[in-house]
Amino acid sequence: MSSQANAPFVHNAWYQAAWSNEIGDTPFARTLLNEEIVLFRDAGGCVYALEDRCCHRATPLRLGEVVPEGLRCGYHGLTFGGDGMCVGIPGQAKIPKQARVRSYPVVERQEFVWIWMGDPGLADESAIVDYPWNDDHANWPHKHGMYHIKCNYMLLIDNLMDLTHIPYIHRKTIGGGSRMDQVNARMEVKRTDMGVHYIRWMLGITPPPTYVRAAGFGDGVTVDRWQDFEYMVPASVIQWTGALEVGCGAEENRAQPGGFSLRIYHGATPETENSCFYFWTAANGYRQDEPQATETLYQEIADTFLEDLEFLEAQQSALEANPERTLLNMKSDEARVQARRAFDRMLKAEQAPLAAE
Amino acid sequence: MSSQANAPFVHNAWYQAAWSNEIGDTPFARTLLNEEIVLFRDAGGCVYALEDRCCHRATPLRLGEVVPEGLRCGYHGLTFGGDGMCVGIPGQAKIPKQARVRSYPVVERQEFVWIWMGDPGLADESAIVDYPWNDDHANWPHKHGMYHIKCNYMLLIDNLMDLTHIPYIHRKTIGGGSRMDQVNARMEVKRTDMGVHYIRWMLGITPPPTYVRAAGFGDGVTVDRWQDFEYMVPASVIQWTGALEVGCGAEENRAQPGGFSLRIYHGATPETENSCFYFWTAANGYRQDEPQATETLYQEIADTFLEDLEFLEAQQSALEANPERTLLNMKSDEARVQARRAFDRMLKAEQAPLAAE
Amino acid sequence: MSSQANAPFVHNAWYQAAWSNEIGDTPFARTLLNEEIVLFRDAGGCVYALEDRCCHRATPLRLGEVVPEGLRCGYHGLTFGGDGMCVGIPGQAKIPKQARVRSYPVVERQEFVWIWMGDPGLADESAIVDYPWNDDHANWPHKHGMYHIKCNYMLLIDNLMDLTHIPYIHRKTIGGGSRMDQVNARMEVKRTDMGVHYIRWMLGITPPPTYVRAAGFGDGVTVDRWQDFEYMVPASVIQWTGALEVGCGAEENRAQPGGFSLRIYHGATPETENSCFYFWTAANGYRQDEPQATETLYQEIADTFLEDLEFLEAQQSALEANPERTLLNMKSDEARVQARRAFDRMLKAEQAPLAAE
Repeated sequence: MSSQANAPFVHNAWYQAAWSNEIGDTPFARTLLNEEIVLFRDAGGCVYALEDRCCHRATPLRLGEVVPEGLRCGYHGLTFGGDGMCVGIPGQAKIPKQARVRSYPVVERQEFVWIWMGDPGLADESAIVDYPWNDDHANWPHKHGMYHIKCNYMLLIDNLMDLTHIPYIHRKTIGGGSRMDQVNARMEVKRTDMGVHYIRWMLGITPPPTYVRAAGFGDGVTVDRWQDFEYMVPASVIQWTGALEVGCGAEENRAQPGGFSLRIYHGATPETENSCFYFWTAANGYRQDEPQATETLYQEIADTFLEDLEFLEAQQSALEANPERTLLNMKSDEARVQARRAFDRMLKAEQAPLAAE
Repeated sequence: MSSQANAPFVHNAWYQAAWSNEIGDTPFARTLLNEEIVLFRDAGGCVYALEDRCCHRATPLRLGEVVPEGLRCGYHGLTFGGDGMCVGIPGQAKIPKQARVRSYPVVERQEFVWIWMGDPGLADESAIVDYPWNDDHANWPHKHGMYHIKCNYMLLIDNLMDLTHIPYIHRKTIGGGSRMDQVNARMEVKRTDMGVHYIRWMLGITPPPTYVRAAGFGDGVTVDRWQDFEYMVPASVIQWTGALEVGCGAEENRAQPGGFSLRIYHGATPETENSCFYFWTAANGYRQDEPQATETLYQEIADTFLEDLEFLEAQQSALEANPERTLLNMKSDEARVQARRAFDRMLKAEQAPLAAE
Repeated sequence: MSSQANAPFVHNAWYQAAWSNEIGDTPFARTLLNEEIVLFRDAGGCVYALEDRCCHRATPLRLGEVVPEGLRCGYHGLTFGGDGMCVGIPGQAKIPKQARVRSYPVVERQEFVWIWMGDPGLADESAIVDYPWNDDHANWPHKHGMYHIKCNYMLLIDNLMDLTHIPYIHRKTIGGGSRMDQVNARMEVKRTDMGVHYIRWMLGITPPPTYVRAAGFGDGVTVDRWQDFEYMVPASVIQWTGALEVGCGAEENRAQPGGFSLRIYHGATPETENSCFYFWTAANGYRQDEPQATETLYQEIADTFLEDLEFLEAQQSALEANPERTLLNMKSDEARVQARRAFDRMLKAEQAPLAAE
């Protein structure tokens, strides 16, 4: 079972390495799963990821330059192509075949740069999480952010799998309004091939102030509100949250205009055992023609996630101080426990061949 | 024998956790003896200490709120009473009996909040160090301070048990004046039930400038000066320092008006093996009706202890760098050695049952 | 063979502890080879080095004072002579013979303070690297600097033994100009008793802009340029760099006026396994009567070495992250490999008696 404090890394998986717009024509370094990686975009616009360490003197390649042939080390000038092979050594005609660095499979799609950190032979692009709303700027205008959090990546998933935290952590922001509406929402949890899906319904409630401001619900209107979350191993969560006026039949069809509706992608990429990158993008599905509405949503989400961040880092620190102590699950942990089980199955499957050796 | 660099913790003892006025209606966190503690005061004014870790997801309770029922976790809303029992779980009627956190015995007395870090069954309030001067505002107006010091707590006790440091560390402040008066003081050391008591007499000396300013000794007056220190295991020192004009019979009766007289309580509470909290309170026994005199005394003591702090942290660092090297006792270490012996006896008594297992 | 990431310390060797002008009449502390040292200059101008730890309570002596008898501890006033013997204990007539601290052989010469960190019985002053140019202010006016670098000391030596780094690391400063002139210089490497010597010749090249500005070469003039480096174990490199107009016979006689010529001493003194002090002094051999030329040279060298520093620290960090991984030598590593071999011979010789035990 994965440790609560420090879930191990699943390696054979796609992770977000960066946002597409982070990678330009200068080397971009990031530590992922404890490995130092350097990403760059060549003149043709293609993104590559290499280990951030020259094979000559171990110098980080991030200190070098992108050149037409690839990435050139800034210390003594060795140049490496996107496949990691050395293609030039100053003052030396012959290039030994050992002159190479590790290259990682990379796919750029839907504004994400995905990286495969495990066995390259197993890298299957069809396993990349699909998030088509990032390509639908007309219906889902959006803006993304990224936070560096000093906690194990699975604590972020835990956070998203138990929304009873909202009226407590976020009591001053999105969790304002009726606390018990939140706590007593009707919860439907379902195991999926890739993880777990749940939906929480709060029927006939007074909409929270942020919903009123966003969607313009009239005075005295009550709504049917939903929180739809899907976790996909190892570390993606797709969220669809919204509300429609009571009587619109939200439970049968949520895709109606005139209400409140937002989508968020949450991705956690491990940096180390006790730190991760939180990639998120928030899409405005209610006032698509108003850029200011998208910006306001982005700001509210950014502020909200900073509240989570404080708790996640404190929780990590407490777990590390006493890693052996047991924790006590509550009723509200149902989806969280299922998500951890899905994660543990993936981890076990990856480690099984090792165990068999 | 206790290590010079890192004396272990005595657990079955009362330590100062905080000053009374530090604890209000928001959670107050402090690490004591390597344990993370959260203190709070309920609506009735009673102070409680709990472990700073929710039993659900290990979240520090310091991020929560004081509510009428006790302390509520800020993550998912579990609430704990002052005895550590969970009294409320949002969305869940039944509270499992394992839902609890550790509670520590606490006593609030004489402006101190005392905490018992060991076996609660052994917590005996009569063993709390008595410091009545904190309750006597008329005769002993006082003001307190607290320093966080990056040294083992026993190095602070060592410092107070060998006052020949005064003319060196404090050569620019209270140690000014005649160095040899200090070094050659007549020293009387006596073992006590709780530790060691010593008194140093400097008879017929010229009073130091700070004494003259404080007590208004006339030109050419000489004084009999004393330094009376009592160490009580594990980490309290009560000081009474003063001077009376020669001829007043100070050696027979020090409690006379007209001279200089101050009392200081010094308490060292371990935070970790190599850091501690230094709680101190300084009482003006010479110009009781002048608040400015109390304030001036406080400032002088505060500055003086900062000089010690620099040395203690450097000493800790040097001891840790070479913990195995022996140190060489001098004549001036007599009371210090006795204090360490008393401490070692207490430590040994506490560890004896463990050794016997 | 010495580890690339963390070459061990050679102890029986002279290292630069400080520049002469760093040591005055207050204690000066520096950690060398993981030992905390305090240096001071007595009233007679003589420099001494003691361990920075009083034998009484381990207090660092750097917090004390230089007094006529030597160095007095700032805690309880013990005084130590330059030989480390205790010469005074306040309040105590008899000084026990164990009251002493370690003293290190020190030699002040040519603006350097050299220290011997190993067996004092083996300290032979004739083994100190000779750098007479520091005494020749008329012909070699100079100015020195010192950098603290978070890398193992031998990485600095490596840097100086492979100058193909110049057109890459220093591409914005001294490495500007024709990259291939640098990379394809004619390299002559020779093993010496004390290490390795090499000279690189770039014949008939266009002088780099800094050379033109410094020496005033005319328009269209081409030069013969040399880079002469000698490494002496364990951690000294003497550099003589310059250029003369083509036709002056530079290869036969470099000591001619009218060209460009500078000398630099480079010394690396270990602080810890992964940090060192870089002592360097740069001498102007082309416009000796112009103090501004010496100052300009100093500034250019200081800026250049900061560029190296960034790489060395990043390289150290990468080596430590994966110390077991092999590195791949290139043709340009010839002198560097020889320098490491000389270093390894010295290390092996020092460790041999230990191995034989």
